[in-house]
Amino acid sequence: MKKVSIVGGSGYAGGEFLRLITGHPALEVDQVISRTYAGQPLKRVHPHLRNFDLPTFVEPAALHETDVLILALPHGKAQADIEKYAGMAEKIIDLSADFRLDDATHYEKWYGEAHSTPEWLEKFVYGLPEVNREKLRGADYVSGVGCNATATNLALRPFVIADLIDDNYPITVEVKVGSSEGGASNSPGSHHPVRSGAVRTYAAVGHRHTAEVHQITGLENIHLSLTSIEMVRGASALAHVFVKEGTTEKDLWKAYRKVYKKEPFVRIIKERHGNYRRPEVKLLSGTNYADVSFDLDPATNRVVAIAAIDNLMKGASGTAMQCLNLMYGWDEEVGLSFSGLHPI
Amino acid sequence: MKKVSIVGGSGYAGGEFLRLITGHPALEVDQVISRTYAGQPLKRVHPHLRNFDLPTFVEPAALHETDVLILALPHGKAQADIEKYAGMAEKIIDLSADFRLDDATHYEKWYGEAHSTPEWLEKFVYGLPEVNREKLRGADYVSGVGCNATATNLALRPFVIADLIDDNYPITVEVKVGSSEGGASNSPGSHHPVRSGAVRTYAAVGHRHTAEVHQITGLENIHLSLTSIEMVRGASALAHVFVKEGTTEKDLWKAYRKVYKKEPFVRIIKERHGNYRRPEVKLLSGTNYADVSFDLDPATNRVVAIAAIDNLMKGASGTAMQCLNLMYGWDEEVGLSFSGLHPI
Amino acid sequence: MKKVSIVGGSGYAGGEFLRLITGHPALEVDQVISRTYAGQPLKRVHPHLRNFDLPTFVEPAALHETDVLILALPHGKAQADIEKYAGMAEKIIDLSADFRLDDATHYEKWYGEAHSTPEWLEKFVYGLPEVNREKLRGADYVSGVGCNATATNLALRPFVIADLIDDNYPITVEVKVGSSEGGASNSPGSHHPVRSGAVRTYAAVGHRHTAEVHQITGLENIHLSLTSIEMVRGASALAHVFVKEGTTEKDLWKAYRKVYKKEPFVRIIKERHGNYRRPEVKLLSGTNYADVSFDLDPATNRVVAIAAIDNLMKGASGTAMQCLNLMYGWDEEVGLSFSGLHPI
Amino acid sequence: MKKVSIVGGSGYAGGEFLRLITGHPALEVDQVISRTYAGQPLKRVHPHLRNFDLPTFVEPAALHETDVLILALPHGKAQADIEKYAGMAEKIIDLSADFRLDDATHYEKWYGEAHSTPEWLEKFVYGLPEVNREKLRGADYVSGVGCNATATNLALRPFVIADLIDDNYPITVEVKVGSSEGGASNSPGSHHPVRSGAVRTYAAVGHRHTAEVHQITGLENIHLSLTSIEMVRGASALAHVFVKEGTTEKDLWKAYRKVYKKEPFVRIIKERHGNYRRPEVKLLSGTNYADVSFDLDPATNRVVAIAAIDNLMKGASGTAMQCLNLMYGWDEEVGLSFSGLHPI
Repeated sequence: MKKVSIVGGSGYAGGEFLRLITGHPALEVDQVISRTYAGQPLKRVHPHLRNFDLPTFVEPAALHETDVLILALPHGKAQADIEKYAGMAEKIIDLSADFRLDDATHYEKWYGEAHSTPEWLEKFVYGLPEVNREKLRGADYVSGVGCNATATNLALRPFVIADLIDDNYPITVEVKVGSSEGGASNSPGSHHPVRSGAVRTYAAVGHRHTAEVHQITGLENIHLSLTSIEMVRGASALAHVFVKEGTTEKDLWKAYRKVYKKEPFVRIIKERHGNYRRPEVKLLSGTNYADVSFDLDPATNRVVAIAAIDNLMKGASGTAMQCLNLMYGWDEEVGLSFSGLHPI
Repeated sequence: MKKVSIVGGSGYAGGEFLRLITGHPALEVDQVISRTYAGQPLKRVHPHLRNFDLPTFVEPAALHETDVLILALPHGKAQADIEKYAGMAEKIIDLSADFRLDDATHYEKWYGEAHSTPEWLEKFVYGLPEVNREKLRGADYVSGVGCNATATNLALRPFVIADLIDDNYPITVEVKVGSSEGGASNSPGSHHPVRSGAVRTYAAVGHRHTAEVHQITGLENIHLSLTSIEMVRGASALAHVFVKEGTTEKDLWKAYRKVYKKEPFVRIIKERHGNYRRPEVKLLSGTNYADVSFDLDPATNRVVAIAAIDNLMKGASGTAMQCLNLMYGWDEEVGLSFSGLHPI
Repeated sequence: MKKVSIVGGSGYAGGEFLRLITGHPALEVDQVISRTYAGQPLKRVHPHLRNFDLPTFVEPAALHETDVLILALPHGKAQADIEKYAGMAEKIIDLSADFRLDDATHYEKWYGEAHSTPEWLEKFVYGLPEVNREKLRGADYVSGVGCNATATNLALRPFVIADLIDDNYPITVEVKVGSSEGGASNSPGSHHPVRSGAVRTYAAVGHRHTAEVHQITGLENIHLSLTSIEMVRGASALAHVFVKEGTTEKDLWKAYRKVYKKEPFVRIIKERHGNYRRPEVKLLSGTNYADVSFDLDPATNRVVAIAAIDNLMKGASGTAMQCLNLMYGWDEEVGLSFSGLHPI
Repeated sequence: MKKVSIVGGSGYAGGEFLRLITGHPALEVDQVISRTYAGQPLKRVHPHLRNFDLPTFVEPAALHETDVLILALPHGKAQADIEKYAGMAEKIIDLSADFRLDDATHYEKWYGEAHSTPEWLEKFVYGLPEVNREKLRGADYVSGVGCNATATNLALRPFVIADLIDDNYPITVEVKVGSSEGGASNSPGSHHPVRSGAVRTYAAVGHRHTAEVHQITGLENIHLSLTSIEMVRGASALAHVFVKEGTTEKDLWKAYRKVYKKEPFVRIIKERHGNYRRPEVKLLSGTNYADVSFDLDPATNRVVAIAAIDNLMKGASGTAMQCLNLMYGWDEEVGLSFSGLHPI
């Protein structure tokens, strides 16, 4: 049994990672750190953990050595203390954006300040198994992924690999997201009478996850918009991409199948019948699946690619658990078997 | 034209009253007071007023004499300054609970502290036209109503008047309410991921509006529970009341018709067909209607009485406008003609 | 491995039972019967089962012998063919209301027609482990439970056992339910623009589950109302019950603890802090938990008891799986470990 | 007073038009035609009209001459009978797609069959006052607009007029829509447990309203996707458009202001503070406003233009009423003063 401590464990990603540990045969919860909630029971903020015998939150200063550290801190905090954390655990997964980008100049461009420990960037592997599986096997330092970036990357990367994209044209993406993306702290904009039923484009241009999409897909001419809609969990990306003249539906199928046919957590959803013919994000709540699809308009060479994920799972803690399995050489599906609910 | 100033005008009830003024032929907005938003445009917090040429919020100290003062302050504030306000306007409507109860001992019992200006209680008329229409005509000081109390009172009062209730048995009521009842300020419990989809009984026993129900219906053996559900606007009360042996459906019809047949804003909804056979609270958003119904179980003498209102309208600002019309001797329906939307 | 066939397997309860089988170490899916969908893949109507290698739907006529039959048919169908089904499996669980009541006269009273095979009523055990655990061990014929009855029964039964209820007064209950209670077939009333945001009391009086509450609690003076609200899954019952003079909060705690402290799937939720102080039905989606609470108003001896369940799980398929575990002498928690999600 | 009859008056657009008539000083309801509901009261399907004294639905055969005919029929029906209708009223507004396109070949391309009365296409004016105001004054035959097309057209047209668009690049649009777009008839896909919380891209490519966008904006290289989300009313379009090198934020402001500054029902929403900084579709429920905004990414010349409307109002009946006012030479704002609700 490996012991896992979570630093910043009162947030939503921390809560999901804790849930996953409770169902994992080789992991156990060690410490859960929260300055705000130190001394209080976990169930105070994580009511889905009521049934488990878990420790109370502890102060940051009480952190002791353990096997695995999950860092679920606000952006900027992990990089500041990374040396300290590295001395306390054999494996670290940082869920923030601190170690996602390979290049410190990109970090500075998108996050508006210089990275404080740029020498650590190359030590971290970007934690998306569909891209970096081999690097993740046995890795010690892994960065979590951005949820909106992940939906976008999974929708588009097969077309890059198959070299189908006509790069004369920009790729545009709108990601529709749930309120849990904003985190566990309330704000005027998260007040239920305000947020309920909203269709609020909060990042029309300039979203930071663009950097992750550049890095993972290699696509430069790609443009994101982010819109909050009425849901709690979920990120559903719809990308408009123009493919090379002559590209057929069959080519697109081949591109997706080549990349995803052996992926345990990516499903191609293209049905001719029933209520769920394309990815439906609500069906993914609590699961680690990314559901993807494409539609081709042969008259214009436009492809509409969709990827839906649970932002807290495949977009954060689920993928992190998949990575941890790889880091320890275990079956990467362990602890991630929840199939989702219907109806929901 | 009468000029109206609103003290505490940044809340939801204030916003609704402002909307009603914009549609009222004999009223105009004078000042809108808000300590927090002084100097800012009304549309900052009241986006539905974007189309109107309205003043910016002003500091409390800037309040000047006017014709009508609407007090929309936190409970306890209006009573403290009522002498000052009375010197500044010919008509006052206080939307808080400060002047709803006739009896200062009841106030103290339910609100947990002595009333600071009990001599003013008798000067205020409880502002429910269906009960106090004649007292409201020409009145100068009127108290707003509690939304949950109003739904309950409108459901039950006809049975009291018709003397149909078997008072050996308690009357029990559950009011299902929307998130706007909690006001315009965000809190941990109003955070969208938490509040969304909730069925949260926040006042199982001891709700303060019970005092208003006692006062208006005369019923003592009545018991409220309040449950927040997934909606923004609305309060829908379902009351279980036991009627005297031998009471028939026809008796109940007569009781409701007697009290409500001439009421412009109370509708008896009992349909045999269609999707909306009983009151449906969502249909009342933005309207001043209270929709009521009853069902009799002849085997047990139980009557289930339902009343649905928009908590911000019939439960607050709509009824206040209806009162203001009466206070000035105008047609009480003026400015309250919105019929609601369907579908919604 | 025991083989399970589901007759009427295209509905929501059938879909949930199938999900539970996929996570159960000692069960496997044999046949799934649906006249409407015969020949089509299960995922067509059960998209949460996409990841499993499951058979297609088959015609009723194709049903062959198996180990366990789950009957998920419209009310009235199972009783007509029970002799046939009994010849085809060693264990049967019928999810309909056909075999819930012990007494054929009660069946006729509440369901409006004579039971066609009343001699089978005594062969079936009412499938609520919290009440009939010992009878369920090794049983061959088990009836599923009514979801609304179950929420009500679990809220109230401890007070009956502890003899705390003042039976001079009626007990009144309002159950708030999600749209999945109406089943998988669309209707004018389930049309999204109509059903969305509804607070629709569809059974003010006379709800059939009252019979199950009578039978399980022994309470005769109990009265249900059913209200559809904006949610897909869930049933949340709030009961007003008057207890004997002098009953204390401590007495109520003792009553609940006595009955529930060893129950694996019933949790008493009474918190002083946090966002989830009483049962919150949304947290139970997909789980087999029933969360219960009580509040006492000492001034009036009113107790407000709340029980929340997922209507498709603890209110149908989850409890059925718990029963099946008992019927085979297995640990009753097997296959029911999902802890629920937060936020949701 | 002009008399208005509605053919196909049981649908949602018909219901909204009826609501608007009840608030219009120069219009009165004549006949409301519905084959399905003939003989039944309007409130059976239009519960928001309960307070008005309106006729029952009548059979199609009973249609008599009147002043204004509103045709709210399924696509294809109005063109078949247009000669008959033209003989029965001085003014006709057809809300279907039958007379929206100028060119019969475009109609055939997008609707898949030849137009049966192509000679009538040129007699109809496309009913978008922001584009065709002068043609609409005094017109006798007006076509309603497509809701998704209208949101798209209003977002983009100012940039076309100002010649800011770089036409080397495709324009891509995703319109998020509410369930009322699907009409008043229930279907498997509109079943609440299925439709609730959905993010369902039902037209990834090839949406028919593209033809209207081509026609109104002149843009050929424009590509729509339609996604149903959790809301009842509303269409919110987000368009990605690339502008010419050197285009500034100020240029975009000028483009929008030039076209919209005198428009009574189009509002540019770009706020630096508050919860509603860009168009928020829920605030428009029941109103005739289109709220528009733009954001420029100067690094890439991408503009994100957003337009939000109530699909049943500005996207259907509201614009139709605005047209009718113009057709009769009245103030075009008459009957359209509802400002919307907040919170909602």
